[in-house]
Amino acid sequence: MTASPAPTAAMIAIGDEVLSGRTKDKNIGHLAELFTLAGIDLKEARIIGDEPTQIADTVNTLRRAYDIVVTCGGIGPTHDDITADAIGAAFGLPVGEEPEALRRLAASYAERGIEFTEARRRMARMPEGATLIDNPVSVAPGFRVDNVFVLAGVPSIFQAMLDNVLKELPTGVPIVSAALDCRFPEGDIGGPLREIQKSHPGTSIGSYPRFDGTRHSTELVIRSRDAAALEAARQAVAAMLADFEAKSAS
Amino acid sequence: MTASPAPTAAMIAIGDEVLSGRTKDKNIGHLAELFTLAGIDLKEARIIGDEPTQIADTVNTLRRAYDIVVTCGGIGPTHDDITADAIGAAFGLPVGEEPEALRRLAASYAERGIEFTEARRRMARMPEGATLIDNPVSVAPGFRVDNVFVLAGVPSIFQAMLDNVLKELPTGVPIVSAALDCRFPEGDIGGPLREIQKSHPGTSIGSYPRFDGTRHSTELVIRSRDAAALEAARQAVAAMLADFEAKSAS
Repeated sequence: MTASPAPTAAMIAIGDEVLSGRTKDKNIGHLAELFTLAGIDLKEARIIGDEPTQIADTVNTLRRAYDIVVTCGGIGPTHDDITADAIGAAFGLPVGEEPEALRRLAASYAERGIEFTEARRRMARMPEGATLIDNPVSVAPGFRVDNVFVLAGVPSIFQAMLDNVLKELPTGVPIVSAALDCRFPEGDIGGPLREIQKSHPGTSIGSYPRFDGTRHSTELVIRSRDAAALEAARQAVAAMLADFEAKSAS
Repeated sequence: MTASPAPTAAMIAIGDEVLSGRTKDKNIGHLAELFTLAGIDLKEARIIGDEPTQIADTVNTLRRAYDIVVTCGGIGPTHDDITADAIGAAFGLPVGEEPEALRRLAASYAERGIEFTEARRRMARMPEGATLIDNPVSVAPGFRVDNVFVLAGVPSIFQAMLDNVLKELPTGVPIVSAALDCRFPEGDIGGPLREIQKSHPGTSIGSYPRFDGTRHSTELVIRSRDAAALEAARQAVAAMLADFEAKSAS
């Protein structure tokens, strides 16, 4: 993977249990935070079901559109774990037992005196040529094919694997941000804020309303890859808020 | 919208703040639960940024693929609220102030003695021909164009709007489910479970591993639109688990 000032990425969370609402995804938010710190632009995230064609089509669309694709879910030992085969289909690669993955699994189960069942052997299945992603939590590795990183869905395992993936990834110029709490509603500040955004094109200014049931408030977040541009926009927003404070006090 | 035994749906959460990890999406999980109860199949969910082209392209792809599309986010009064214009672009419709929305907003701000600013008027902007989705929390309505339902991103407002949307939607035959806790790891039960799935084609059996840092356990979930098929599969899984219990006791 070549270095880039701002690598782009997409994430795919795979699992019927997320689409049914039974499981609430935690992996997308975790990856989003880490990628932001690493200067990698997460451009989209998709949650899809345990459907071979949907998985393969989604992987193919996203791996061509972005520098990095991370998937989670569907690499365990049961019949509904079909991600490895779907990734093989996406790349047109045969899928079989990867020798080093098989060795690690066999050794781990032998050491623990647990039977190495046919179901457990499935966790060594990967597309030909895949490289392993270490799993320090529960041994069964994830894998990488080209720019696609295939990780487990259980959050503790996903997070441990992602730490290993991050070591291999190109990092970008991190986006720095400044947040200002604003006690005035969006409808009051919307006009002036639009003018500030126009005159600070190197920044992205977001306005995030909150509503606690009785009162609206707003968090204003300025983001930029350029610290000086960030600071200039932050000062402009702070000055606008001071104006509103002065007006509301008078 | 025509009734269907199992309407299909997709959800789009719009917002840079979710992709940066600053905000954790709660709306997808909420919609997933409600749609499951209503017998509507949520087939995928996407999180995308505040990018007009990305929003329009995503809406166009999903509204053609599924019966129902729900979006959240980007319909407030500030410059980064661009969803209404992006939906207009997706449908090739002009976007302007919707009279009834404008009337509701003007009346609400007049009543509260709050200035009806240019920024606040933006919340009346909708594609021509859109119908309103009531907002009992903070007045500014969402809207519907064809099979696309455009809702607010703030969770309390999203949820209130979604309750109103659900009244208009076709419901399907609800999927019923049964969950069994399994103290045996997936690698032990994987083989027999696969056989049970094969002999119960009217059901979908999911195996969801959990790992608490020291011990693996598994939740087995059987889902079906047919109560008798569900019960038959549940009994087969329960019998398998009883076998494992007997073996582990001996």
